[in-house]
Amino acid sequence: MTQRRVIRTQVGIVGAGPAGLMLAHLLGRSGVETVVVDNRTRHDIETTIRAGILEHGSVRMLLDNDISDRVLTDGYEHEGIELRFDGQGHRIDFADLVGESVWLYPQTDVFIDLAAARERDGGDVRYGVTDTRVENVLDAPAIEFTDADGVDWRVECDYLVGADGSRSICRRELPESMRRSYFREYPFAWFGILCEAPPSAPELIYAKSPHGFALISQRTDTVQRMYFQCEKDVDVDSWSDEQIWDELQRRVDGDGFELKRGNVFEKTVLPFRSFVCEPLRHGRLFLAGDAGHTVPPTGAKGLNLALADVAILHRALADHYETGSTTGIDAYSDTALQRVWKAQHFSYWMTSMLHESPESNAFDRKRQLGELTSVVSSRAGSTWLAEAYTGWPQR
Amino acid sequence: MTQRRVIRTQVGIVGAGPAGLMLAHLLGRSGVETVVVDNRTRHDIETTIRAGILEHGSVRMLLDNDISDRVLTDGYEHEGIELRFDGQGHRIDFADLVGESVWLYPQTDVFIDLAAARERDGGDVRYGVTDTRVENVLDAPAIEFTDADGVDWRVECDYLVGADGSRSICRRELPESMRRSYFREYPFAWFGILCEAPPSAPELIYAKSPHGFALISQRTDTVQRMYFQCEKDVDVDSWSDEQIWDELQRRVDGDGFELKRGNVFEKTVLPFRSFVCEPLRHGRLFLAGDAGHTVPPTGAKGLNLALADVAILHRALADHYETGSTTGIDAYSDTALQRVWKAQHFSYWMTSMLHESPESNAFDRKRQLGELTSVVSSRAGSTWLAEAYTGWPQR
Repeated sequence: MTQRRVIRTQVGIVGAGPAGLMLAHLLGRSGVETVVVDNRTRHDIETTIRAGILEHGSVRMLLDNDISDRVLTDGYEHEGIELRFDGQGHRIDFADLVGESVWLYPQTDVFIDLAAARERDGGDVRYGVTDTRVENVLDAPAIEFTDADGVDWRVECDYLVGADGSRSICRRELPESMRRSYFREYPFAWFGILCEAPPSAPELIYAKSPHGFALISQRTDTVQRMYFQCEKDVDVDSWSDEQIWDELQRRVDGDGFELKRGNVFEKTVLPFRSFVCEPLRHGRLFLAGDAGHTVPPTGAKGLNLALADVAILHRALADHYETGSTTGIDAYSDTALQRVWKAQHFSYWMTSMLHESPESNAFDRKRQLGELTSVVSSRAGSTWLAEAYTGWPQR
Repeated sequence: MTQRRVIRTQVGIVGAGPAGLMLAHLLGRSGVETVVVDNRTRHDIETTIRAGILEHGSVRMLLDNDISDRVLTDGYEHEGIELRFDGQGHRIDFADLVGESVWLYPQTDVFIDLAAARERDGGDVRYGVTDTRVENVLDAPAIEFTDADGVDWRVECDYLVGADGSRSICRRELPESMRRSYFREYPFAWFGILCEAPPSAPELIYAKSPHGFALISQRTDTVQRMYFQCEKDVDVDSWSDEQIWDELQRRVDGDGFELKRGNVFEKTVLPFRSFVCEPLRHGRLFLAGDAGHTVPPTGAKGLNLALADVAILHRALADHYETGSTTGIDAYSDTALQRVWKAQHFSYWMTSMLHESPESNAFDRKRQLGELTSVVSSRAGSTWLAEAYTGWPQR
């Protein structure tokens, strides 16, 4: 049995998704060393379809930190969304309401940019590792893992960051006695497709219909992403392309609006859950992104919230290494959780306003239409939604 | 058996609450004759404690139509409310946000002003009648009743208005086959008190606490109205004054805020229901106010919504008698229901944001705090609330 190789770094990061890599990149620019490990291969992460909408603050993080400006060339700026109900579309004009926009730029591309930047800058990122474990988060944190070549490693670090997603192994290091878990499951799911077709509309459409919610989203000029509310135990393979298109179409019907159909080449079910772990820090361990909280996809907040965590955590750690102060790292959990709970509410709000719940009655459905009418007929209501959708200022 | 006396009028109105009397008054000023009947005595109506907050549009109706300006002398203008949570107060500044205010002026005083104006103007209002029934709402409407002196009457009219409250007999004239009823009951109620004490705060306080909701409201300089969320089957007589004050106090605790206590001289339970009947018209019958819809009291919308109905109905009927057009009366139901559903949503929103529901878990409670934080930290969010609370423009 060969001996475990030991390396030492300042911040050990578990998880090489956008949160982990962005933190490593920002810390690198602040002169703080990191090692990042992930069980998944770089190819696996690159090819797992996830979120697609970036808040303006997330776009700024990519642009202002020498990562890539590919978002400007390959992404699509959206200055609004459409809320569609009672067969009519109502535009929420972000540019007019809050002077901001969002960008359609898939999470996989954010990852590709960050992974390339880490490679370019000589960052230490280990993909495709196995048997990852963490220890001593209170006083002398370490990550142990076996790399893709079968070599055993031990990374000793000052601080440990769990950016390892909703099934985080780092989160388990918070003792039951001090960890508070908040959870809500919804009585429906999303049926998501990727298809070969041109965009059906210039911007995203959030549609509430008596048949349930639908989201007409996009990816590129030739590939589109769409979703419709479905039963949690739906068997996606039992749905033919024609059935899928008919179901999507009847949820956006009205005004003569017709979806542009095409070959469906991926079908998946997205679960609907809200989860928050408190606090986001234990000793020398910090949680960021899905490791600390998950949102239902309706508000497009998951990836953006992870990057907002990282922005706070980067400043806290960089300040700590520069000045020795612990003010920032001591405040991290509370500061990040303020945005998390606002985003949890926004995601819940968009979900509850637009979906048909099996627990709803006829009153609730009419009330939802009253709510949507109130939002689109009030500049203040539309602005409140636009502020949340485009992203509150980062702290 | 004496014969039934027959009188003829243009608009027969069942219900002499604020909605019925306001409609009769406005129609009178437009030269349209009315007869109003109510099972209750004038004294009964005057002494039944109901709502206390008038939207600016409701105040304008009192002031602009030669009813009374007592609201200006005996009422209290409130330029904001306080939302209180996590032990801290957050003011929603109506004057700053929307340039409007609300007025604390009890429904009983609105009634007293309207009853006096009707008396002054020679309006025909019959209080304390019995055996009221309505008939022929499709072609030749009539109201039959026995007056307080035992005389039987029949009022024949062109149009009939049901302003007879949540247990409306007029509503029953809408055939089951065309009536749609929307209903939601809430899993809690309000414990309401009247007490002899000075105001505890300059404006109303809507407080969310882990122990449930409380509303610190007012009546006069020496009498206050307060409420706290309670079980639906609460026995108000089993609560001592001290228990009531302790319960109210713990729901507003924080910041050193102390309620001013005093003798509790009335205790009641307010049920929490949302209800809408559609349509609000059948043939020559129109429903207005609680006869057509009820809201939970959280948003202070019940009385104001009734007066908004009446404003629309008055213009529709006055226009009809002046020009012969049926455009206004044909549009009445749809026009009124737009505001009704927005108000239903607002009332539900205020309720769901501020109350502890037995169906909620720890996630939901933290999400509510995220929602409240989002409202008070956003000018747009606060404005959206202020617009609804002070009242959307009347149509």
